[in-house]
Amino acid sequence: MILAIDVGGTKMAAGLVAGDGTVTRSARVPTPQGADALTLWKTLVELIDSLPDGVEGVGVGCGGPMAWPDGEVSPLNMPGWRGFPLRARLAERFPGLPVRLHNDAICLAVAEHWKGAGQGSADMLGMVVSTGVGGGLILEGRLINGGTGNAGHIGHVVVEPDGGPRCGCGGHGCLEAIARGPALTAWALEQGWAPKNPESGTYEEDRVVTARALAADARAGDPVAVRAMRRAGRALGIAIASATHLCDLDLVTIGGGLSQAGEPLFGPLDEALREHARVEFARRVKVIPASLGQEAGLIGAAALILAGESYWAERR
Amino acid sequence: MILAIDVGGTKMAAGLVAGDGTVTRSARVPTPQGADALTLWKTLVELIDSLPDGVEGVGVGCGGPMAWPDGEVSPLNMPGWRGFPLRARLAERFPGLPVRLHNDAICLAVAEHWKGAGQGSADMLGMVVSTGVGGGLILEGRLINGGTGNAGHIGHVVVEPDGGPRCGCGGHGCLEAIARGPALTAWALEQGWAPKNPESGTYEEDRVVTARALAADARAGDPVAVRAMRRAGRALGIAIASATHLCDLDLVTIGGGLSQAGEPLFGPLDEALREHARVEFARRVKVIPASLGQEAGLIGAAALILAGESYWAERR
Repeated sequence: MILAIDVGGTKMAAGLVAGDGTVTRSARVPTPQGADALTLWKTLVELIDSLPDGVEGVGVGCGGPMAWPDGEVSPLNMPGWRGFPLRARLAERFPGLPVRLHNDAICLAVAEHWKGAGQGSADMLGMVVSTGVGGGLILEGRLINGGTGNAGHIGHVVVEPDGGPRCGCGGHGCLEAIARGPALTAWALEQGWAPKNPESGTYEEDRVVTARALAADARAGDPVAVRAMRRAGRALGIAIASATHLCDLDLVTIGGGLSQAGEPLFGPLDEALREHARVEFARRVKVIPASLGQEAGLIGAAALILAGESYWAERR
Repeated sequence: MILAIDVGGTKMAAGLVAGDGTVTRSARVPTPQGADALTLWKTLVELIDSLPDGVEGVGVGCGGPMAWPDGEVSPLNMPGWRGFPLRARLAERFPGLPVRLHNDAICLAVAEHWKGAGQGSADMLGMVVSTGVGGGLILEGRLINGGTGNAGHIGHVVVEPDGGPRCGCGGHGCLEAIARGPALTAWALEQGWAPKNPESGTYEEDRVVTARALAADARAGDPVAVRAMRRAGRALGIAIASATHLCDLDLVTIGGGLSQAGEPLFGPLDEALREHARVEFARRVKVIPASLGQEAGLIGAAALILAGESYWAERR
């Protein structure tokens, strides 16, 4: 049994994962907002301690950026951790056990390849379209880390070089700047969108709900909502065409909140993809929704240990 | 000693390559234009027969597209070969010896990684900017083939999605549609460029000379030539930024005729790259000229055999 941990700005989750990828037990807590490093660590330790012990290894997915494979994490949405040695701390807590840590978007891609919608594909990109846009790249059946563990960052593929919107990375015209949920709803509101089903919630939840509301309004035919989803869908299709040409992909899986948006997003996505992925080898690429849902992060984290021959390589 | 073969639309080259990558002997002939399959094959056989025999393996680079790893080639500029079983024919001619064949752009990238400007980089893209724009991707020290042997096609990364020029692939806004030599000179001529040093030659050579003339005029300050090189340079920088984010690259090498263009191309390339490669891990990427020159194709083809553990993987 493997202890799997999934750390994000909104929640921390931990679970026990069997060799076949089944999550046999799990627990989650909200991530304390604005907390310092020690409070965050104590919250995580309490969560872990709520599960039975006797595990054989520890796999972790955490929000980036991070120094990889050292596992010193500085999650964007957790300012209390800046260069926090999460992998080393866990290794101290579980002496003698393997502890492996990777970017949360990479764990989601790994999960879809190992046990989800990407099973059997040798060359795939597993994407997440949510508050951010991220991904993980699996080529020739193995996770690609790249030079610093950051391969798969499709959110910063450039899709609108001239006059594209500013991105959080400091660049402009990145896929993420257009297609992440908050950017999408902000653009729609600017264009005069009046949400038909605004819902309340915390700030973070509200953002998610709002992108869902936008998708629902688009499905109902609201013209601004339709244009907003079309804009994001086309940006996704263009970035996927570029990635397909560069990496000769079979498959792209899309998870995260926006993956539920349906035809208003996937129609324009497919249209732009077919318009731009024209070299013969690229025409075969398929784009499908991720299939694992909420437990994907834990399953992917566990796979770093349970299927390490495909998904883990200590750096030379 | 390895027999290395480099087949392109303009010329065919063959050489003997020692274990350390030294080309000890080589020969080349013009590719017969408009020739049928048999004539092309006979021309290649004569070329090979002009070299001493006694080799231990055969490595081949050939213009794409091709069915890989079967090595059935359909080079764009050699209409006489459509699905021509080049690898199988060579295997019949050299019974018992390993024969390996890959895309010519991939062989150039492999050569630069093995013995050229990319030595020591674990994560690089080797590009060629010439009549076309191509490349090969080496990640974690190994050549990436992708699902069909076509990884590295950076020429079809989208850099101008809206209103970008039509590309030979059927799409539009591809890097190649903007930055390949003939597109570049055609654009400059449309904009009123009057070449200061037009040179004569065959159609193919003329195109190459003309792109060089454009670069020379740009260096001399001709305003239209400067704008043309700037347009191509920026397109290259944007595509390289996207590739760097997706694949977490250390290094990009640029070979081919346009790699000699100097500051009028590389200045705007670097400017656009720094503008768009903003996520911290991406800032380290370096873009440098390829270093191996004319023999690169032979060296890369030989590496498919001589360094097969890094550059060759038979498909499952």
